[in-house]
Amino acid sequence: MHLLIIGAAGMIGRKLVARLAAEPDCFGFDVDRLTLADVVEPLAPEPLKDVTTTRTLSLADPGAAESLVSGQQDTGRPDVIIHLAAIVSGEAEADFEKGYMINLDGSRFLFEAIRKEGLRQPYCPRLVFASSLAVYGEPFPEKIGDEFHLTPLTSYGTQKAIAELLISDYTRKGIFDGIGLRLPTICVRPGKPNKAASGFFSNIVREPLAGQEAVLPVEDSVRHWFASPRAAVGFFVHAVRLDTEQVGLRRNLTMPGLSARVGDQIDALRRVAGDKAVNLIRREPDAGIASIVSGWPRDFVPQRALELGFEAETRFDEIIHIHIEDELEGKLI
Amino acid sequence: MHLLIIGAAGMIGRKLVARLAAEPDCFGFDVDRLTLADVVEPLAPEPLKDVTTTRTLSLADPGAAESLVSGQQDTGRPDVIIHLAAIVSGEAEADFEKGYMINLDGSRFLFEAIRKEGLRQPYCPRLVFASSLAVYGEPFPEKIGDEFHLTPLTSYGTQKAIAELLISDYTRKGIFDGIGLRLPTICVRPGKPNKAASGFFSNIVREPLAGQEAVLPVEDSVRHWFASPRAAVGFFVHAVRLDTEQVGLRRNLTMPGLSARVGDQIDALRRVAGDKAVNLIRREPDAGIASIVSGWPRDFVPQRALELGFEAETRFDEIIHIHIEDELEGKLI
Repeated sequence: MHLLIIGAAGMIGRKLVARLAAEPDCFGFDVDRLTLADVVEPLAPEPLKDVTTTRTLSLADPGAAESLVSGQQDTGRPDVIIHLAAIVSGEAEADFEKGYMINLDGSRFLFEAIRKEGLRQPYCPRLVFASSLAVYGEPFPEKIGDEFHLTPLTSYGTQKAIAELLISDYTRKGIFDGIGLRLPTICVRPGKPNKAASGFFSNIVREPLAGQEAVLPVEDSVRHWFASPRAAVGFFVHAVRLDTEQVGLRRNLTMPGLSARVGDQIDALRRVAGDKAVNLIRREPDAGIASIVSGWPRDFVPQRALELGFEAETRFDEIIHIHIEDELEGKLI
Repeated sequence: MHLLIIGAAGMIGRKLVARLAAEPDCFGFDVDRLTLADVVEPLAPEPLKDVTTTRTLSLADPGAAESLVSGQQDTGRPDVIIHLAAIVSGEAEADFEKGYMINLDGSRFLFEAIRKEGLRQPYCPRLVFASSLAVYGEPFPEKIGDEFHLTPLTSYGTQKAIAELLISDYTRKGIFDGIGLRLPTICVRPGKPNKAASGFFSNIVREPLAGQEAVLPVEDSVRHWFASPRAAVGFFVHAVRLDTEQVGLRRNLTMPGLSARVGDQIDALRRVAGDKAVNLIRREPDAGIASIVSGWPRDFVPQRALELGFEAETRFDEIIHIHIEDELEGKLI
């Protein structure tokens, strides 16, 4: 089987490739061709080097989607496509045209390239799409169920919600076998602190574990919805393996996660790494960030995804332990 | 004020123009320029002839949206835009490319033309969009509330749901002041019986009132959601006049209507026009139509629209009386 990952150089893309390299049968089939595409050159994993092709391109480039779908002479077209490529929320909000170009048109170019390939010669690849909680916008109930409407309050969320609608329609029409996964906020996000309004949810765990100070701009009572990077990779693996007959025509699913208050995060950090770590959290209230975060969803009842076998952590302690195992070689300083 | 109606030659467009001709101040402002656009040439109403420009074009034609938005030398750009243009459900389902081209790209061309006009010179017209119950797809509860998710089961419904998302986002960004109206099934639809699966809801009233036989392909127990053409015109008029500050950021509203069983329709017909009319309904069960209709929504609680002052009929008898008044010059044969 030929697997194509678009957005392969991003955080989830890289971790997905690493999972495949470590566990070649994780998808339940033999990956005998792997194509990794991104706007920056993706890294071919050592154990899969012989079967990997890397492509440096943007879905919004003319002909890029068609070229990924038709494949190259020696690769043929992909059987499974994991579509992670996106302009992130803040950038899509700041650059309206670029956000719509990459997140809406780029996705649609991909879906249309698949449709046109199918007109040439029957084709119906599995397509797994990374959607987002940003499809939800306040006001919402304390716990959001699977039948709550999507009223995004960002252009990014709008673009993800539109791609979700297209995925359902193209799937219904038999153009591809699509599934969209609304990812929780990924925590602990590895790497450096960034300026994303959501950054502090990871910063207040990752930085203290590395002996560094972290700034907490909101109250301890702020509640949010989390899953680890490892769980996120697991969602994509499960979605590739899933018997989509069970999914029916509603192809977009809120992924499981855990709802935790910032105070719960801190309590978990104390249990795992002690007061020494917790003392590195510096409270510096920021009304701007507090206001943005107050519009985000806090809790879900992702019944359908759970019934379909998607799994995430249930305690924040687990999320911290996973970060220590996957990013810190199992060691606390 | 300059009013632009796109899709002005369709049933609702024509009735809206007739309402304006009969009641020039219905929108609460003076319409000193009226542009009527459609793919077939719209008719300029006699009393408004001097201020009316007709444009025969499709939103999907290159440059058409820009030309409508910038206006012509003597008209200037529109202050209010009513966007009714669409490929209907059956055609959008049969011709995938055409449906997406007109219903998605056409709408987006219009929204983008407004955005680009605003970059040239500040601009934020009121935009009222005709959406549809087709944004809903089964399974759903017996009564659908304002917070139920959109899971269309047709390409038409998908295209309408995408336009709704764009309307909210463009409005949030201050590009236009948009509002989307999810219209009930319009009943009694004037004209000849057509092959639309929903046609019988109107046929079984309109044809007997004209002394003609009508075919009823489903059981009396089938329930559906209705408003008269007069109510539909009223929704658009109200949406143009509405103080959109009250609407907030959720710019798409399920319009009020009444939920009636086919049996309720027939009882109302009997009360209004007697057994002579009811006896012209010929029962000819059609499993195909019954199956399509079983997937349609049956009842709503359109709380937000009601609170915002949108109004529709509350008894099916009224719907029949309106048909007699508006289409039959008040006379029963």
